[in-house]
Amino acid sequence: MIIHMSKLATPEDQNRVLSRITGAGFKYEVIKGATGINVIGILGDLSQISETYFEDLEGVDKVVRISKAYKLVSREYSSADKVIDLGDDVLVGGPGELAFMAGPCSLESEDQVMKIAAYVSLMGIKIMRGGAYKPRTSPYSFQGHGVEGLKLLATVREKFGLKIITEATGLHYHVNQDGVREKRNVLENVIEYADIIQIGARNMKSYGFLQELGILTKMSKQPILLKRGDSSKLKDFLLAAEYIVANGNPNVILCLRGIRTFEDEKFQRYTPDIGAITVLKRESNLPVIFDPSHSVGYRVNVPGVALAAVAAGADGLLIETHNDPANALCDGEQSVTESQLADIKSKADAIRHLLV
Amino acid sequence: MIIHMSKLATPEDQNRVLSRITGAGFKYEVIKGATGINVIGILGDLSQISETYFEDLEGVDKVVRISKAYKLVSREYSSADKVIDLGDDVLVGGPGELAFMAGPCSLESEDQVMKIAAYVSLMGIKIMRGGAYKPRTSPYSFQGHGVEGLKLLATVREKFGLKIITEATGLHYHVNQDGVREKRNVLENVIEYADIIQIGARNMKSYGFLQELGILTKMSKQPILLKRGDSSKLKDFLLAAEYIVANGNPNVILCLRGIRTFEDEKFQRYTPDIGAITVLKRESNLPVIFDPSHSVGYRVNVPGVALAAVAAGADGLLIETHNDPANALCDGEQSVTESQLADIKSKADAIRHLLV
Amino acid sequence: MIIHMSKLATPEDQNRVLSRITGAGFKYEVIKGATGINVIGILGDLSQISETYFEDLEGVDKVVRISKAYKLVSREYSSADKVIDLGDDVLVGGPGELAFMAGPCSLESEDQVMKIAAYVSLMGIKIMRGGAYKPRTSPYSFQGHGVEGLKLLATVREKFGLKIITEATGLHYHVNQDGVREKRNVLENVIEYADIIQIGARNMKSYGFLQELGILTKMSKQPILLKRGDSSKLKDFLLAAEYIVANGNPNVILCLRGIRTFEDEKFQRYTPDIGAITVLKRESNLPVIFDPSHSVGYRVNVPGVALAAVAAGADGLLIETHNDPANALCDGEQSVTESQLADIKSKADAIRHLLV
Amino acid sequence: MIIHMSKLATPEDQNRVLSRITGAGFKYEVIKGATGINVIGILGDLSQISETYFEDLEGVDKVVRISKAYKLVSREYSSADKVIDLGDDVLVGGPGELAFMAGPCSLESEDQVMKIAAYVSLMGIKIMRGGAYKPRTSPYSFQGHGVEGLKLLATVREKFGLKIITEATGLHYHVNQDGVREKRNVLENVIEYADIIQIGARNMKSYGFLQELGILTKMSKQPILLKRGDSSKLKDFLLAAEYIVANGNPNVILCLRGIRTFEDEKFQRYTPDIGAITVLKRESNLPVIFDPSHSVGYRVNVPGVALAAVAAGADGLLIETHNDPANALCDGEQSVTESQLADIKSKADAIRHLLV
Repeated sequence: MIIHMSKLATPEDQNRVLSRITGAGFKYEVIKGATGINVIGILGDLSQISETYFEDLEGVDKVVRISKAYKLVSREYSSADKVIDLGDDVLVGGPGELAFMAGPCSLESEDQVMKIAAYVSLMGIKIMRGGAYKPRTSPYSFQGHGVEGLKLLATVREKFGLKIITEATGLHYHVNQDGVREKRNVLENVIEYADIIQIGARNMKSYGFLQELGILTKMSKQPILLKRGDSSKLKDFLLAAEYIVANGNPNVILCLRGIRTFEDEKFQRYTPDIGAITVLKRESNLPVIFDPSHSVGYRVNVPGVALAAVAAGADGLLIETHNDPANALCDGEQSVTESQLADIKSKADAIRHLLV
Repeated sequence: MIIHMSKLATPEDQNRVLSRITGAGFKYEVIKGATGINVIGILGDLSQISETYFEDLEGVDKVVRISKAYKLVSREYSSADKVIDLGDDVLVGGPGELAFMAGPCSLESEDQVMKIAAYVSLMGIKIMRGGAYKPRTSPYSFQGHGVEGLKLLATVREKFGLKIITEATGLHYHVNQDGVREKRNVLENVIEYADIIQIGARNMKSYGFLQELGILTKMSKQPILLKRGDSSKLKDFLLAAEYIVANGNPNVILCLRGIRTFEDEKFQRYTPDIGAITVLKRESNLPVIFDPSHSVGYRVNVPGVALAAVAAGADGLLIETHNDPANALCDGEQSVTESQLADIKSKADAIRHLLV
Repeated sequence: MIIHMSKLATPEDQNRVLSRITGAGFKYEVIKGATGINVIGILGDLSQISETYFEDLEGVDKVVRISKAYKLVSREYSSADKVIDLGDDVLVGGPGELAFMAGPCSLESEDQVMKIAAYVSLMGIKIMRGGAYKPRTSPYSFQGHGVEGLKLLATVREKFGLKIITEATGLHYHVNQDGVREKRNVLENVIEYADIIQIGARNMKSYGFLQELGILTKMSKQPILLKRGDSSKLKDFLLAAEYIVANGNPNVILCLRGIRTFEDEKFQRYTPDIGAITVLKRESNLPVIFDPSHSVGYRVNVPGVALAAVAAGADGLLIETHNDPANALCDGEQSVTESQLADIKSKADAIRHLLV
Repeated sequence: MIIHMSKLATPEDQNRVLSRITGAGFKYEVIKGATGINVIGILGDLSQISETYFEDLEGVDKVVRISKAYKLVSREYSSADKVIDLGDDVLVGGPGELAFMAGPCSLESEDQVMKIAAYVSLMGIKIMRGGAYKPRTSPYSFQGHGVEGLKLLATVREKFGLKIITEATGLHYHVNQDGVREKRNVLENVIEYADIIQIGARNMKSYGFLQELGILTKMSKQPILLKRGDSSKLKDFLLAAEYIVANGNPNVILCLRGIRTFEDEKFQRYTPDIGAITVLKRESNLPVIFDPSHSVGYRVNVPGVALAAVAAGADGLLIETHNDPANALCDGEQSVTESQLADIKSKADAIRHLLV
């Protein structure tokens, strides 16, 4: 870490910085600048110290970190690709097959779930998604079937051998449409039923929740798919993953899903952050999954963006599909049909083979 | 609500829309367009129905809401300004005095807190802020003193007669620097100690948390200050407030704090959303407070932006101040000094008197 | 076009709208809403009327366009892909080969240009880029060699049979490093030398320049590559193309190059707008080229993003390459080496064959 | 300027940097870091060298400028506020009265212009705005009356003694609605008629145009009001002003007008960049004017934002007003009425007196 003192810094300002450095157990060297500006280099492993610890001091102009703010999730810390093993030869990450995760936005009925599971499974997709708890912008929108939905997913796992990914929306107690509260909180329920626990974009900065999640899955090391917040910087995204890993669970999958920009929602709901794939693959050793459905918001744009993600180096895709999108309870507009999904899968696999 | 069907919509598409409307208990009228495009008007109170309920259907091009998505927090629902009474003649909102809330970013020591409380109180400021739980981007940054901090605030209240605002960061259990977990969750602790419960920008979209907050304060109706997420649209901000109100607690204060844009962080950490004050005051009857400290991130910019907020019609200011900013444990760079605070207060009061 | 009147509109407001409609030569139908809100449908070809013509009137709440604001460049106007023929079997657009355009950011010396032209040509690339006029953020940065650079490009064309694309930065007179003004303006010079005239992102909204460009190339119909402004909406990008076409030159190539977002420049200079490829290919019949170099700003990210663009359906790539990037006068950091370029070309061609 | 070499930089990389420094006529000192990373300080006046001159070199991690990229427009270069004298005691900038500039978006008819001039003048406003050339997003929108409009402005000046500000949209030749091209280019015409030449946001990055503008007004030193591009960083805005000043005309007025963000256009067309006022006043000695009309886009938001700008320290306001906004040919929705303008003026003056 290198501290640039300001032109106007007094000797007292500098002493304050130096004593904070030694107080934290580090050594330093002061580099006297010809222009009267001093630069202070701090020596040692600073990965657990935040820039702001020095930046907030009077007389400090700028703090430049040489080592990264995130450590445990960084490529420097561990250069080999992390491969997450879900059992039964289902892997996420690494040089092998792409990981496909597909299913409906929300679990609606047994009939719907079984139909989708059947065609998803037949295509050779190994992981099914489906929302039992839905984070909705309006308190008046459908919030998901809760535990009943999770039980449907358990049936799917048993019947089709699919692995299950579903979202844990928080530490609160779900209230169903009749006003009845569930007995356990949402995270506890999802931990019981899911093979992969999904954390949504809206909770990426709920740091207390991430910490609790790390602690509660410390023993089981259940895989966690963490979605990027729609306006979070990549550094903050990696730090959110670091929260989970630093609290005990190293099995984190990064998932990109589009960012908020000035783009017109009529054309694209969010801007697909395809370039971030190349950045994350270089900065971190964690698997990177791409969600084209939420990125674009319209079915017709999904295939092109899905293939682009694979060409850019993504380890897999998380796609919404529906057997009857026109009648979907939620996000029907962005769900692909069975035949579109099959087409995406075959082309994506072909691009993958061409590149690896 | 007006539904525009697409040019390519089939009669089946239209029937599907019509049956969803009648199924939800509403009436409609179909307006046949000369260009072959039909427009469907839905009649009745649709405030509790989301646009997506129709937008997701096949053949629907666009849904235009005439009444708002948010209802209970809207100016249309209740045109009079909501005034929140904290007791002892301390009011937030309405045509009276500006509400000032000032204090340190984080509670550091009894000495610091008492010094700041003393000068804040002497200036005639009635509400003190201070963070016992700090949401930090890095898991390695200082996370606050927890319950010990809350107890300090209780002492301040007793000694100086100040009202207390402090943040509840979630439903998790705080872990102190020795690794010990608190016995109750963060929200439970803050509910016990605070006069105003602050919900931070990072949790504005943690809808389960907002719902739980509404339910847990349904009886007490403890005032809640809700901060806008740094990239949330104003409609989503108002819907987040609606979550709390719809779950039982109408005493919500809206707080703006800067939005994320392409601006260079060197000049401004966030872009102060001053224009949003005029929009919120028109759309909603809730009090609107402005936080200049987090908006700009640098002490030198705070006074100008604080006064701008008052000139634009804000009902009060939430400002970080520190007796010794150079040595602050957190956000020292953006905390104003005692004399700056006094200057802001007198000028802000003068502008307020000029305008009301 | 459908005009939604506001709840508070008076009969006078409505009459004003109706007479503006008839004054412009159109017919209308008024749809009386049950809630007292009227909707007015305008009949006829409104492609040459802007929404604001009605939106600005008192009492108008919202104007929804059914037909598009852009007409001549729209897929609806002409559904077949436009193919631009540069002569000698070099095509841009259509179902054939990808169009590669590669070369240095700026033309530095004869030696540099010849070396690059040699390897570009050997790879089978048919179009060479190179900047003789450079739009620079700082008045003190190197602004290009002007006409001397254009002459170098002419030599390249003669020697290697490459087609030439180079930027026209405006209608001003270039001043060289000795303070001498050129005799003709920049556009006139570029028109003389280029096979494709490039219009940069910074000038996408210089509407007077676009109009002049259309007029000056009306007879020659020289192809024009128009880059998207870094914060322009897709609708505005298509309207900028419409400016050129409506003024007489239909041979426009659309080029995406990254948009400005909140992303950290350390990781990506701009955010690659890959999703926009799928939108533009659907909305317009013009060829769509992608520039990965300016999108990402760092050489290491270029290959992944280039291949992503091809997978998403781009008709070609515009790439910066340099024989010695470490010593480039401009943008060396984002220029790929010869071997990287060869690798991108072979993989991009393979993906193209797989998809078309 | 301080150059941080990367961890992986070779001795050759470093030598390349050193020889580029000495080649440019500067001295350096190399600071050897304990971690093996070297930092190179460059000594001397580097205001005319761009960071990219070194950043583009291989092995360079980051270049930190201590002195600014802009020089002539910086507060460091000249600490006193620049006051621009329009004659007849009309000043822009400095500690005196606010500078108000008001008038219609576009010049429509003699009757309209005279009515507005009359009430503007009567309020004590000294500068009238009005567009003869209009930069429009669509080629089919009304583009202004050209020279005819300029002549109307000249009449206003003569009759009411008002100073005139009007926009020069480029170096092209205006084509009127009958298809006739004007004899001189737009800039030449505006130079003849205007007291202040306005450069619009869309041309802020048309660097060739800015250069030409500086050269053509080098002798006259006619004041130029430069608007910030809707997505340009403040550094780039100041560099655009530097372009004009470095080419010979020091009389530049900076004008803020809202930036493009993710905000919903329904509430605000652009986000008013009020915070930027405090930054510009500190960084530069040029006058800073605020345009609330284009920032917000809706009349009802204009007064609050206008007063906020004054409270934040703006030197004046540029406001659109119309005698009959409901029938305005352009931007009627954002034009304030006569009585609103009078109210803004009296309150803004009162806030100014309170603060200066």
